[in-house]
Amino acid sequence: MKYPESVEKLIQCFEAFPGIGIKSAERMAIFMLSKMSKEEALGFSKAIEEVVLDIKKCPKCGLFTDQDLCEVCSDDTRQKTIMIVENSKDVLAFEKVGIYKGQYHVLDGCISPLNGVGPDDINLESLFSRIKKDMITEIILALPSTISGEMTALYIKKMLEKSAVKVFRIGYGLPVGADIEYADEITLTKALEGKREI
Amino acid sequence: MKYPESVEKLIQCFEAFPGIGIKSAERMAIFMLSKMSKEEALGFSKAIEEVVLDIKKCPKCGLFTDQDLCEVCSDDTRQKTIMIVENSKDVLAFEKVGIYKGQYHVLDGCISPLNGVGPDDINLESLFSRIKKDMITEIILALPSTISGEMTALYIKKMLEKSAVKVFRIGYGLPVGADIEYADEITLTKALEGKREI
Repeated sequence: MKYPESVEKLIQCFEAFPGIGIKSAERMAIFMLSKMSKEEALGFSKAIEEVVLDIKKCPKCGLFTDQDLCEVCSDDTRQKTIMIVENSKDVLAFEKVGIYKGQYHVLDGCISPLNGVGPDDINLESLFSRIKKDMITEIILALPSTISGEMTALYIKKMLEKSAVKVFRIGYGLPVGADIEYADEITLTKALEGKREI
Repeated sequence: MKYPESVEKLIQCFEAFPGIGIKSAERMAIFMLSKMSKEEALGFSKAIEEVVLDIKKCPKCGLFTDQDLCEVCSDDTRQKTIMIVENSKDVLAFEKVGIYKGQYHVLDGCISPLNGVGPDDINLESLFSRIKKDMITEIILALPSTISGEMTALYIKKMLEKSAVKVFRIGYGLPVGADIEYADEITLTKALEGKREI
């Protein structure tokens, strides 16, 4: 005996998310069927549709936005430093602290050959053309201290070797192995203060 | 700085599920935006719509079905015992084992006054009318051994006090393969209560 086909399909959809196993996916689908009203469930479906239609990546930095240019890139008072982060969540974490006054570049991933993710699979090309075009002289790497993060940092450093761009990384105020999004404000501030040229 | 409005809304939708906190909800929404193709995301939205339109509860037992009557209720060879479970997942768990040949009744919850869930808020009324109409003589309670589960079991037992229906409960005790030293006190008490001559 199995669930009706449409329920099985919904379970599979939930299972596609990171951190959601088969049991959690089942629980979520059943919750939707038994505890949500039809209106709530259709509202969820509509919210997904709206996000897909509304949201695009900022053509300059890759941050999610519903505007032509994201909030940060359209702010002329921002300094011409670029902080390179793994994903949009990290931008919000730094913006919450409010101490960083430069721009961002969202890679949407890190280089990870084992998972088949090469330099061309993340938002790197636009970074290098942007550095050239806007005559950027300083970038700050705020990538996770994982193997993928280190690999990506080294790749960027190497690609800019012959340019005049100074490459910094945020300081080791950040606990090794922790995610940027989970770090507290003081840690993020320390990390910014302690940036080091690599 | 916040996410665009439609993203915030999607995060709230994910957060409505049990076991999904704000951070997980954010992660899921961002995953959808950055790692899923437009087609995949819209496929998810469509899967929800289809489930809402396709799936209803079996009018007899309350199990999810895309038919007029669920698979179990439309099977005439099933014995006239009713096993009462908390939700549809439990039916699938028992059907997987395949040893139970009777029918089911899905309550979709348990009585929990603290959460404002009374006997009228779960699928109980149809149970009693079904017992009467089909002249059921035996029911088996397979409810969780929580306070809510116990309360629901007692309520059902009390409501059937004056009828000729025999009320059973599934055996509680030590799970097969578990160590006695790791079992909690209540489980050991139940196991002792449920001792059988061999």
